[in-house]
Amino acid sequence: MTTTGQDGPYADVDVVTPAHGMSATSPTHDADGGGRGSQTTIAAIAAEAGVSVPTVSKVLNGRSDVAAATRARVEEVIERHGYRRRRSASGTGSGLIELVFHELDSPWALQIIKGVETVAGPARVGVVLSELGGEHRPPQEWLDDVLARRPRGVIFVLSELDAAQQAQLKSRSIPFVVVDTAGEQPAGVPVVGSQNWAGGLAATRHLLQLGHRRIGVVSGPRDVLCSRARVDGYRSALDEAGLAYDADLVRWGNFFVDGGYEHGHELLSRPDRPTAIFAGADFQALGVIRAARELGLRVPEDVSVVGYDDLPVTEWVQPGLTTVRQPLADMAATAARMLLEIAGGARPANLRIDLATELVVRSSTTPPAA
Amino acid sequence: MTTTGQDGPYADVDVVTPAHGMSATSPTHDADGGGRGSQTTIAAIAAEAGVSVPTVSKVLNGRSDVAAATRARVEEVIERHGYRRRRSASGTGSGLIELVFHELDSPWALQIIKGVETVAGPARVGVVLSELGGEHRPPQEWLDDVLARRPRGVIFVLSELDAAQQAQLKSRSIPFVVVDTAGEQPAGVPVVGSQNWAGGLAATRHLLQLGHRRIGVVSGPRDVLCSRARVDGYRSALDEAGLAYDADLVRWGNFFVDGGYEHGHELLSRPDRPTAIFAGADFQALGVIRAARELGLRVPEDVSVVGYDDLPVTEWVQPGLTTVRQPLADMAATAARMLLEIAGGARPANLRIDLATELVVRSSTTPPAA
Repeated sequence: MTTTGQDGPYADVDVVTPAHGMSATSPTHDADGGGRGSQTTIAAIAAEAGVSVPTVSKVLNGRSDVAAATRARVEEVIERHGYRRRRSASGTGSGLIELVFHELDSPWALQIIKGVETVAGPARVGVVLSELGGEHRPPQEWLDDVLARRPRGVIFVLSELDAAQQAQLKSRSIPFVVVDTAGEQPAGVPVVGSQNWAGGLAATRHLLQLGHRRIGVVSGPRDVLCSRARVDGYRSALDEAGLAYDADLVRWGNFFVDGGYEHGHELLSRPDRPTAIFAGADFQALGVIRAARELGLRVPEDVSVVGYDDLPVTEWVQPGLTTVRQPLADMAATAARMLLEIAGGARPANLRIDLATELVVRSSTTPPAA
Repeated sequence: MTTTGQDGPYADVDVVTPAHGMSATSPTHDADGGGRGSQTTIAAIAAEAGVSVPTVSKVLNGRSDVAAATRARVEEVIERHGYRRRRSASGTGSGLIELVFHELDSPWALQIIKGVETVAGPARVGVVLSELGGEHRPPQEWLDDVLARRPRGVIFVLSELDAAQQAQLKSRSIPFVVVDTAGEQPAGVPVVGSQNWAGGLAATRHLLQLGHRRIGVVSGPRDVLCSRARVDGYRSALDEAGLAYDADLVRWGNFFVDGGYEHGHELLSRPDRPTAIFAGADFQALGVIRAARELGLRVPEDVSVVGYDDLPVTEWVQPGLTTVRQPLADMAATAARMLLEIAGGARPANLRIDLATELVVRSSTTPPAA
């Protein structure tokens, strides 16, 4: 397999170099050499894995016509030696970036898409959108297709690959950035999020300042970092006010209307019901409001409700929702800019960025009834 | 420029053939021949335009490094002779389809995206998303990038190219399908829509059956076909009931909350205000409901409101919105299937399909006050 010399956007430059610091392991492979050195490298992978050079090339490009066992052997050699495909000389790659959602079930996703478009459009980069949730796109097949497309990089939104899959991206020199991470990310993985702890603090302080003392929380899943950070902000605001944290008033659920409805119904059915509820998402807040109405409670007169996200819908509902603004479009744009910088060979000064959150007061909060 | 013989997903097969029925114009060019005949064809374009063969190839691939005047001359020759690039032998193209929105400002768009994903995912086709609205992506530059990506096809959602741009797609054998067309499309352009006229009829019949006699309409833009069809359905239902059409009760505006608010406020401020309003979109309906509340009118007791689309938000607002369900995800999935069929060389039996709409009755409609 030779470098074809095409300079089109999909030029197929099949050269790999050992990763930084790995040259000691493979002293004969010249990381900065031209085609010849690279040919040696790909040949070395082939020799060690006991396969042909074209087979290594197929594996690198995510082609499905390689037996699974063979592929696993080649991936193992690539990963063990930390080989990295050299970036194409132009540094531009294919002109595509991948934007990957766990699921596309909320207008939340639309804000992210719009943010990525504001950067990708002027940069004339195409945005390939995928949804990993549901059963549409099994992760490994999806990853093979990504490897075949050779994008400049990948943006994961509340979604992630396992370590072996991350290694596959790395070995192809396809950088990735995570937006609003669900779990901890290994050092070196760029993450753009928002100040969730500060958001929880601001929402709870607002309710305390209005005079509320029993404040319930309907949060997102307990294993999602941003949910935990928001609840810790809530707890910290209670501390400031000298109020005890009551775990019974804090519920963990999903980010959607039904999660808000279910937990809101429960909290508001208690004889010692809270006079205010801080929800982990605007949609949860809509569910809480629905539950309140069904129980004959007025919002905000009988119960104040604060949402989280500041999606456009919060302005349109009645009452307008007091919420914590998460700059979703800015977060996505920041991630896209960072990705293109990394793909272009730059090293951004900060790989972990949390953008500011902001309390937006509308009509769903008021002092508690006397 | 020779065919490279690569078989990867982005193999650069630069052969063109005269379009069907054009062989009389270019008798020496063999539409079904192999590389040689095709080479002759691309050479003929080059000769006639007075440029080199690589220049023609650059123009065909949307490369920007060709002077505008040269490009225009080449495009003119291509279009005049109706040349068509031959589909790649594998019939699969690049493994990408393009999904193009005028704007991404409504959760409406998310339903379309999800529908396309349900087809593209299992087919392992990547979906490149673009927004033509705003100033992010000037149409010609965007189109150049599409030509360079060589997608299997393009889905336009309430957006379209001008005739010259459509000709550019045709000459590269990139098929396209329109979802929910704004204007008339030339014969031969596949369009997937929904039964807008029937939707308007059903919404209005529902209100008439409840006993309403003065029914206002807040529709979308007058120059968008689907808006006109819905209003004609409304008019037809009035005819059935023996009621006169009063143009004063029919307002044309944008599909968003502000459009609904503005026109709703006007209609409901009249001394002879309507007792019901049929809105052209769920978001318009939310605007009408806000206007009603500001005027001290209860929904549905004082004014009934019907929306259009059945977006998820309609279930969550208070009162739950009676609306006309438009099967947006199905429309998008149908368009994607049709596109992949055409890209694969098939000729779908029907190029114009309208899927059924359906009235969904919730709590925002009731008989008029006596």
